[in-house]
Amino acid sequence: MSVQGSRLDPWRESYAERTAGMTASEIRALFAVASRPEVVSLAGGMPYLPALPMDAVAETVQHLIATQGMTALQYGSGQGHPDLREHILEVMALEGIEAHADDVVVTTGSQQALDLVTRVFIDPGDVILAEAPSYVGALGVFSSYQAEVVHVASDDEGLVPAALEERITALEAAGKRIKLLYSVPNFHNPAGTTLALERRPQILEICQRHHILVLEDNPYGLLGFDRDPWPAMRSLSEEGVVYLGSFSKTFAPGLRVGWAVAPHAVREKLVLASESAILCPSNLAQMSISTYLSNNDWRGQIKVYRELYRERRDAMLGALESLLPEATWTHPDGGFYVWLTLPEGLDAKAMLPRAVTERVAFVPGTAFFADGSGAQHMRLSYCYPESDRIREGVRRLAGVIRAELEVRETFEPGTSARPSDRGVQFPGPEQP
Amino acid sequence: MSVQGSRLDPWRESYAERTAGMTASEIRALFAVASRPEVVSLAGGMPYLPALPMDAVAETVQHLIATQGMTALQYGSGQGHPDLREHILEVMALEGIEAHADDVVVTTGSQQALDLVTRVFIDPGDVILAEAPSYVGALGVFSSYQAEVVHVASDDEGLVPAALEERITALEAAGKRIKLLYSVPNFHNPAGTTLALERRPQILEICQRHHILVLEDNPYGLLGFDRDPWPAMRSLSEEGVVYLGSFSKTFAPGLRVGWAVAPHAVREKLVLASESAILCPSNLAQMSISTYLSNNDWRGQIKVYRELYRERRDAMLGALESLLPEATWTHPDGGFYVWLTLPEGLDAKAMLPRAVTERVAFVPGTAFFADGSGAQHMRLSYCYPESDRIREGVRRLAGVIRAELEVRETFEPGTSARPSDRGVQFPGPEQP
Repeated sequence: MSVQGSRLDPWRESYAERTAGMTASEIRALFAVASRPEVVSLAGGMPYLPALPMDAVAETVQHLIATQGMTALQYGSGQGHPDLREHILEVMALEGIEAHADDVVVTTGSQQALDLVTRVFIDPGDVILAEAPSYVGALGVFSSYQAEVVHVASDDEGLVPAALEERITALEAAGKRIKLLYSVPNFHNPAGTTLALERRPQILEICQRHHILVLEDNPYGLLGFDRDPWPAMRSLSEEGVVYLGSFSKTFAPGLRVGWAVAPHAVREKLVLASESAILCPSNLAQMSISTYLSNNDWRGQIKVYRELYRERRDAMLGALESLLPEATWTHPDGGFYVWLTLPEGLDAKAMLPRAVTERVAFVPGTAFFADGSGAQHMRLSYCYPESDRIREGVRRLAGVIRAELEVRETFEPGTSARPSDRGVQFPGPEQP
Repeated sequence: MSVQGSRLDPWRESYAERTAGMTASEIRALFAVASRPEVVSLAGGMPYLPALPMDAVAETVQHLIATQGMTALQYGSGQGHPDLREHILEVMALEGIEAHADDVVVTTGSQQALDLVTRVFIDPGDVILAEAPSYVGALGVFSSYQAEVVHVASDDEGLVPAALEERITALEAAGKRIKLLYSVPNFHNPAGTTLALERRPQILEICQRHHILVLEDNPYGLLGFDRDPWPAMRSLSEEGVVYLGSFSKTFAPGLRVGWAVAPHAVREKLVLASESAILCPSNLAQMSISTYLSNNDWRGQIKVYRELYRERRDAMLGALESLLPEATWTHPDGGFYVWLTLPEGLDAKAMLPRAVTERVAFVPGTAFFADGSGAQHMRLSYCYPESDRIREGVRRLAGVIRAELEVRETFEPGTSARPSDRGVQFPGPEQP
């Protein structure tokens, strides 16, 4: 008789090579911790659903099933329901995208779109370029397909075009096959920054010249606080961009509905890949969203979300300003996240156990790099906790940071208590 | 200016090698044809949803969103909602499976479970053994991961153990790496047969001896017409089987909810793979099913489906008996499908255009083989059309077959008009 935990895995010799790249993310373990009610979670990226008109949603879905249940509960199209694909065109028009419903592939959340694009383009060893830092969920997908992720330096205005060009040149000289540039241009996860308008055509031009497909991941684009949405990169290039959208942040994530817009031939491959992966996305989820968009003021609902998140962003920035002079951080004008840079020498991951003891959670910066860098950073989310809780969370976090600094001062006097002089310039992988 | 259709794909050099294995299935093109109302479709595998208590389902979901919307519409667990995993244990207990909720991974339909298992185990060139014929959707997944599918001869009682042993021995002698045996033991899609009870432990023993994991795909197990469900292979082996289940046939496919039960270490890898693929399955879909199972007589509903499909099976077998003496076919005692063998020399795929002109559709047998065999066969579904339509469909099909035979008799006199003397013995890949 063997103990469960020590039992050998009889299939350990049978796994595919790609499983070496499938490891539990740092966010995953945190979900368990962050769900305890006494913890102020600045870790998750959950939208604040109490802002939704829940009774109206409930009635929408009830009516849908009662009147169109034979379709809503049946198998559907692999590419996605035609009605929803039409609605998606309206949503994307807000960011200047002109497309045809035939260019849209509906997916099980935009995470599945990330999976499908990677599946269609990446052989083991192919290079994917990504911002530094980059979205942890995308890094997980890329790793599971054995891609080599190479980060490109990013600053307050997003990806730096000159750094992109330089990086591509070096990789090409080394004989690497660069397939994709993965970018979150608006209200970046985790950086909180937005790619400057004038950089967008520059980046597209560089990628076009080097025949690199741009994977534009845009879940937050409609959640800007102070202005109308900027034109998506897809609005500037039809053939050079695969665009990913999502209803998870503008409506609700529990339906798992996202989409991809791709050049014609790529779209065909994405549909085949999706049929292989899931047969078809849920008709019930798709038709629920179509019906909601038809019968409700969805633009008004997005405005409700924007104002809510702006207030919380203000609460977080105000609390950081007054409580954490030792650190620096980004100033997002949309989305869910602030990227915080700790005083020189501090390690966010090493601080996490103490932070949880003090009832506050965050995501350590290393989660957002494929190469182990990012230790001096953390991602703070202001999307889910209410403003008072955000301030309390930052207060607890400031206490943890101060305690870490005191420990450091005791053992290594004279080395800390000042933010990195790099400010909010993010480390590329070439930096320590 | 170039015409859309003739435009070159600018990304044609960029696709991953695996895309060579992603091709449109024969079922896919058929879905468009079969949806025209004048066509009797004996092609699709859609459950007959009018048998569901649609108003009760609508109210269940309405109440769920109104009272638990904050959870139902939010992100959930990558492994699946704990309540649903508990309910799944009750469902599987009907087939003798003892498991723990921690062993269950909820997926976006059991198609996603097929994808995840293949992703976790298959490197390009690895061998997957499968019945002859085998489920077209599984063959598509296997091909997209560049597996080599090797069919094993099957007869009226399912997979033939001696043929399995022989095939494994030959493959091992050729230095092949055999990872999985894929089997649909109950009411097989497309064969309509059920793996004999006494063969189940024999097959498990053979696979265990050769260290091959059994992938038991069981969407139809509870839809037997004349008896209680037989024990699943998973009930005989906890460590040697990954079991796949689905609510698509016993409840409704539009929610896209299936599951896998796997040995502990394999389950951990499946959860990581699923988080990478979709982050998490839909809480709304999962909680809708949980609530439905809690508040409704789901066993009674399955009985309603069983009786409905039994009546349609009888209609189809009766019509075949009286209208198609030239052919042979299987006699399913559950599930959705009859596997029909044409008179020697006829080719089901070649007949399909004429059949569609005559307003009847089926799936050609070649769809169910990875190696191009199966031309003399077709799959007929009795799940969706009502009995009168089934009889009319078989009448039209008989007309098409007779016309084909007449053409054949005219050009090659004396060669046809008798069923294959192999009867319902299915061809293995070694046969012409």
